[in-house]
Amino acid sequence: MSQLEALDTYFTTHRDEHLEEMKQFLSIASISSLSEHKEDMKKAAAFLGESMKNAGLENIKVNETAGHPVVTADWLHAENKPTVLVYGHYDVQPVDPLELWDSEPFKPEIRDNILYARGSSDDKGQVFMHVKVIEALMKENGELPVNVKFLIEGEEEIGSVNLPAFVEAHKEQLATDLILISDTSLYAPGRPAVCYALRGLTGVQIDVRAAKGDLHSGIYGGGVQNPIHALADILSSFHDEHGTIAVDGFYDKVRPITADEKAAYEALDFDEESIKAEAGVKELYGEEGYTYLERTWARPTLEVNGVFGGFSGEGIKTVLPATAGAKITCRLVPDQDPYEIVAQLRAHIEKHKPAGVDITVTDFDKGKPFITPLDHPYIQAAGRSYETQYDAKTAYIRAGGSIPIVATFDEILGAPVIMMGFALSTENFHAPNEHFHLENFDKGLRVISDYYNEVANLSK
Amino acid sequence: MSQLEALDTYFTTHRDEHLEEMKQFLSIASISSLSEHKEDMKKAAAFLGESMKNAGLENIKVNETAGHPVVTADWLHAENKPTVLVYGHYDVQPVDPLELWDSEPFKPEIRDNILYARGSSDDKGQVFMHVKVIEALMKENGELPVNVKFLIEGEEEIGSVNLPAFVEAHKEQLATDLILISDTSLYAPGRPAVCYALRGLTGVQIDVRAAKGDLHSGIYGGGVQNPIHALADILSSFHDEHGTIAVDGFYDKVRPITADEKAAYEALDFDEESIKAEAGVKELYGEEGYTYLERTWARPTLEVNGVFGGFSGEGIKTVLPATAGAKITCRLVPDQDPYEIVAQLRAHIEKHKPAGVDITVTDFDKGKPFITPLDHPYIQAAGRSYETQYDAKTAYIRAGGSIPIVATFDEILGAPVIMMGFALSTENFHAPNEHFHLENFDKGLRVISDYYNEVANLSK
Repeated sequence: MSQLEALDTYFTTHRDEHLEEMKQFLSIASISSLSEHKEDMKKAAAFLGESMKNAGLENIKVNETAGHPVVTADWLHAENKPTVLVYGHYDVQPVDPLELWDSEPFKPEIRDNILYARGSSDDKGQVFMHVKVIEALMKENGELPVNVKFLIEGEEEIGSVNLPAFVEAHKEQLATDLILISDTSLYAPGRPAVCYALRGLTGVQIDVRAAKGDLHSGIYGGGVQNPIHALADILSSFHDEHGTIAVDGFYDKVRPITADEKAAYEALDFDEESIKAEAGVKELYGEEGYTYLERTWARPTLEVNGVFGGFSGEGIKTVLPATAGAKITCRLVPDQDPYEIVAQLRAHIEKHKPAGVDITVTDFDKGKPFITPLDHPYIQAAGRSYETQYDAKTAYIRAGGSIPIVATFDEILGAPVIMMGFALSTENFHAPNEHFHLENFDKGLRVISDYYNEVANLSK
Repeated sequence: MSQLEALDTYFTTHRDEHLEEMKQFLSIASISSLSEHKEDMKKAAAFLGESMKNAGLENIKVNETAGHPVVTADWLHAENKPTVLVYGHYDVQPVDPLELWDSEPFKPEIRDNILYARGSSDDKGQVFMHVKVIEALMKENGELPVNVKFLIEGEEEIGSVNLPAFVEAHKEQLATDLILISDTSLYAPGRPAVCYALRGLTGVQIDVRAAKGDLHSGIYGGGVQNPIHALADILSSFHDEHGTIAVDGFYDKVRPITADEKAAYEALDFDEESIKAEAGVKELYGEEGYTYLERTWARPTLEVNGVFGGFSGEGIKTVLPATAGAKITCRLVPDQDPYEIVAQLRAHIEKHKPAGVDITVTDFDKGKPFITPLDHPYIQAAGRSYETQYDAKTAYIRAGGSIPIVATFDEILGAPVIMMGFALSTENFHAPNEHFHLENFDKGLRVISDYYNEVANLSK
């Protein structure tokens, strides 16, 4: 019996016991955003530590922070082998509206091989899988093929407030060759996906003022600047007629999409009709010269998220408003720098400032984009591991959103990040009836086990 | 003793009595917008009718309407002489906030020759002056130099809802050679003004929709149209870089400003610094090639009165909104037609419609612009009458605002409108401590008396 056959048997034999333990973990209402669940947060961290210990991990520590605890553990006896840092989170979203749940969010139930509970897919279920992989490897082999470190936080759903400082302070302890995260989704049911890049984020608020107070448009109209006109001119200047961002220097550091990436996206059989239905739009729109996937994954954006000024009630009010404003965010791609981008936005606004108004620009937070190149051996290995269990080619994808903590890992720890998720995007994360298809729990245990072996065989 | 000297004596002799009667009129809380004052409205209309009767007017009638009554009266025995229709209103604005009044709004008080009461200047005080002029002429001469009709409504402060239908239905009865209105202000203290033109008003609401619901800007950003971007492009397209409106055909019917008008505005010694202070702006701004007064009086405008879409709370929300909208009004000048202008706006929006959005355009109400040419004999006569009492040249002005009923008179009755006001723009119309400088009450009685004689001497 090969090593993987033995693990397969272990997972099969212990499946009921593992699911029972997972249900206990999911029964703890670890809602990070609600202070009345502070004790549940501690309970969940302790439960996780206990599981890690039983799995054979060492140096288990529930680290206090200014917020909720960070659970760390390791196993570091695979000499001359790479180190894998597993990141995840044990906190969950609130459960309102409770009446829309078919079973209680913290009383896990399995129906038709689907586990229903808050946190089942995002992310306690996926974290639990990683612990069980360690347990199986240790029970079967008495050792791991690679060195492993765990870093499981309790504040992901509230912006990972205290984690960057923790990572910075524990830089040596957390040193690693790669960071493995299971907090994303398959590309489609039955079709696995390795996510190798995320966009960064930054933005500004623009506040435009003309008069001291609102004016009567009959008396002053035509005689003084209207801040909404000034704002519209500025907002309109951000894009040209081809949907390209017209801010000087904006694209200077954008890493071109490689031929391999283009081929990978082509292989996804992207269905334009289904994305139109999903978004509820009649047509897609964006930067000319790029496909939808390229535009939403690998190209930066500048979006006005909100605009306000003057009268917005019912009917008519002939006011010449004193102020108007807009909120703007940019999704950034490697190697754009959020600080440089904000400076460029400020210069653009200054350059396009209409007469007769004062403008104030306020910075928003800055998150860097992140990429592990598609051809990185650890990325390709992840794809191969998926294919041992799934009867479909692995999708190599980026995500258009931003997970600031990923860029922080990349930056502080200087290691590639590999995102191998096992959820499905339809599994109601953050919504009532969150669930997790146990088919992917079963396959995932075997995929991760295989991945450790793949990584062990790659040179450090 | 000349006729005017006799009138002067009459006004002086009866001043206390007149002011006492005016105070009684002002004591009636004729607030048209509040249903609990419905009886006060009737009381004020009846009081006015009684004053008219005592003054010597005939055919006094308190006409019921779907809203508040319209008071009409006439005296039509000046054979072969012109007919003057006096329009005004006996309704007033609400008085909130009451605590800011130094004396009660419906307990008129005279302090330092200034009468404090709601309606003292806008417009019961000015209507009352017209009644007293009739009384003086009738008592002194037993007849009037011209035919006179009165049309005093009770709904001016709520948009003259029922008046257009009333005027249309009584077109023959109200037939006139000129319409005289005292509901405006002097140009400055001591400096009288004849207002000979008003701007019209129309507008549209633009609603832009892209997706069915708000989208996540990370997931869809760059892939679908942002309705705020689309809206900004449309709003920005309405004006060119010279502040000129870029809507096809918009200026086609604009009546050029005459050399006489330019000279009249030059003569006003317009003070740019004081208007900047009044509006609270650092600089004036508008259509190139025109002065501030020309732009706000004699040139049309297109103003965005409100803009809305997406997130406007504190901080950041990375939403790609489903909808955005704006409210737009245009101030129109002779001979622009509001219906044509709305059609032009619709065509412009259609022409500039960005890809990826649906746009709905909703019309607002339409009010025509109005002008009695500056060189009209009745306008020039009004200026001369002012100058018999005021030690300053009459200002010939337009107003940038819109009084829809004036255009309605112009249209239905086909007679020139002469606006001779005696208030001051600083007299707190619509605000606490509304007042009326009695110096202008005294002068006004004599000016109006003189004007009837001036009009009598002009050919019909």
